[in-house]
Amino acid sequence: MERRDFLKKAGAGTAVAAGTLAAPAIASQSREMTIVSTWPRDFPGLGISAQRLAARITELSEGRIKTTYYAAGEKVGAFDSFDDVVSGNSQAYIAADYYWKGKHPGFAFFTSVPFGMTQVEWNAWIKFKGGQALWDEMSGEFGLKALACGATGTQMGGWFNKEINGVDDFKGLKMRMPGLGGEVIKAAGATVVNLPGGELLAAMQTGAIDAMEWVGPYNDLAFGIYKVAKYYYYPGWHEPGGLLELTINKSAFNSLPPDLQEIVRSAAAKSNQWILSEFESQNHAALKELVDEHDVQLRRFADGVIGKLKQFTDEVITELAASDPMSRKVYDSYSAFQDNVTSWAELSEKQYYQAISS
Amino acid sequence: MERRDFLKKAGAGTAVAAGTLAAPAIASQSREMTIVSTWPRDFPGLGISAQRLAARITELSEGRIKTTYYAAGEKVGAFDSFDDVVSGNSQAYIAADYYWKGKHPGFAFFTSVPFGMTQVEWNAWIKFKGGQALWDEMSGEFGLKALACGATGTQMGGWFNKEINGVDDFKGLKMRMPGLGGEVIKAAGATVVNLPGGELLAAMQTGAIDAMEWVGPYNDLAFGIYKVAKYYYYPGWHEPGGLLELTINKSAFNSLPPDLQEIVRSAAAKSNQWILSEFESQNHAALKELVDEHDVQLRRFADGVIGKLKQFTDEVITELAASDPMSRKVYDSYSAFQDNVTSWAELSEKQYYQAISS
Repeated sequence: MERRDFLKKAGAGTAVAAGTLAAPAIASQSREMTIVSTWPRDFPGLGISAQRLAARITELSEGRIKTTYYAAGEKVGAFDSFDDVVSGNSQAYIAADYYWKGKHPGFAFFTSVPFGMTQVEWNAWIKFKGGQALWDEMSGEFGLKALACGATGTQMGGWFNKEINGVDDFKGLKMRMPGLGGEVIKAAGATVVNLPGGELLAAMQTGAIDAMEWVGPYNDLAFGIYKVAKYYYYPGWHEPGGLLELTINKSAFNSLPPDLQEIVRSAAAKSNQWILSEFESQNHAALKELVDEHDVQLRRFADGVIGKLKQFTDEVITELAASDPMSRKVYDSYSAFQDNVTSWAELSEKQYYQAISS
Repeated sequence: MERRDFLKKAGAGTAVAAGTLAAPAIASQSREMTIVSTWPRDFPGLGISAQRLAARITELSEGRIKTTYYAAGEKVGAFDSFDDVVSGNSQAYIAADYYWKGKHPGFAFFTSVPFGMTQVEWNAWIKFKGGQALWDEMSGEFGLKALACGATGTQMGGWFNKEINGVDDFKGLKMRMPGLGGEVIKAAGATVVNLPGGELLAAMQTGAIDAMEWVGPYNDLAFGIYKVAKYYYYPGWHEPGGLLELTINKSAFNSLPPDLQEIVRSAAAKSNQWILSEFESQNHAALKELVDEHDVQLRRFADGVIGKLKQFTDEVITELAASDPMSRKVYDSYSAFQDNVTSWAELSEKQYYQAISS
């Protein structure tokens, strides 16, 4: 940007403010933003960060946007969040978009794809390689505007009460696994049961499900999953990114003046980095506690299991991409960029990790 | 700088803000924030993002902070940015803190440490494991408040006009490499020459230096380094993170009301993610262009070279940690967290990358 453009822009900003002055009724108006969420109240990581994001929007806007936050079940059930925002009963939800694959199969690409991109790679796609435009297009079909607001980092592969030695061990397993990962283990013969977080432990205890994945050590320890399952597998082939979304009713978002839209975007962006940092900072100690104090048995999926799951993933994603033109567009963009970014990771991140551990 | 030195003036937009705020006297002040930088104007990635960050602060604050940005050399020389902010002549700089290791050796930990943490790991340390408090303490000694505002991701290992087959090939080499990486190659026998970006190509052409590292494919292509060097090495053992800083005169920062402090923090946080995404999105295509169109020879440092550089790194960092109590505190905190986070990376990111490429 040329210096004179910057000065012009600074000037334009002043003019906007002046425009606001001319309309005091609008300037002094406090906008209500009701935010619902799929996370339990005060749940470490996911729940607390959603509450903080809601508060941050009020803080950054000096109260010009007044948020009211409802955790899962406080206003509507976790999985009714989408409809509540589409209808305009609430103005925004905080969730993981793969919960809505029944609304549109393509939503899976905006949380996590098995053997797909990490959060850092996905952020690059969203921001600079067309991801956000596709997300806007898909969300726009429902009258929604979506923003990334967090990520868990590469997750763990799930909790089991038997060892998984071959892919056939998924046969007949009743497992909680949302998103495309769930489709993949379904292809491997599992029965996929999707329940909100708050119902999972009871379901494990009653035997309604045999296995589950949730997030990673930090959240899984807080959740107490070690009380109902013994084997903890890695790597999290099904969720390398684990993105979270702040999705706003599009009319409500568009009715905000540009500076308040930017404040919502900035709050979401800060949250996006904050949450990943929190998970990164806690995962190791949590894993150590799970193993040392709760006798959790750590297991690595055998190469043969990973190989088979990759085959099923290819089938599932190929089918998804063929299901409708929008999903095809998203898939094409996603996979083209992943090919590039993975080549780069081979030379940079992967070679670097090799160097430090050699 | 005293609080009164932070220039305040009534602007056209102020009365507007007054209408929306409970504290009109404070709200009606427009604050000037002069930002100097170590990056050339309009330089892709680093330069443009610094300009954007300056503009964003004005935008988010609705002009209540009015930033004026000067690229390297426009107000002061690149390496005079630190002093210009310490003295209060400017209110903030955007730079890489390892440029200031002459001011305090511990600054190196806040840009990049050879064989140290990646940006994601470093962010977690800064936010949740005491890094920011230590950074505040160290910067506070100079009357500064530092915030992360970007990262390049894992860099490349540098440009050479001869192959590096053994660590002895560093002997007698005149190379540009800032920060601790420079100390390491000095230990390997190189002569380290530190020059601002704008002077590097000419120095390569005149033979004032034989080799250089800059950033990675995206920036290095834009810089045209392929015109003056032939071999391009990876991995970037010396800069796994490549953090960038928005550092503000502490009195100036403290004189801001809490909401404006939060706006500065949010703008920096958004920039922190934005810049990494930009580099991630561009590096692969840039590397391909360097190799395919400019005949750059890609080389991987041999394991033996990496092993020796690690030995020298241990020596350099041990010496640094022993040099003063503040550096020791930072080193202890940094390395304790890195041990943890690397153990986690072994199970998560590293196993995941292995799974997708198997």
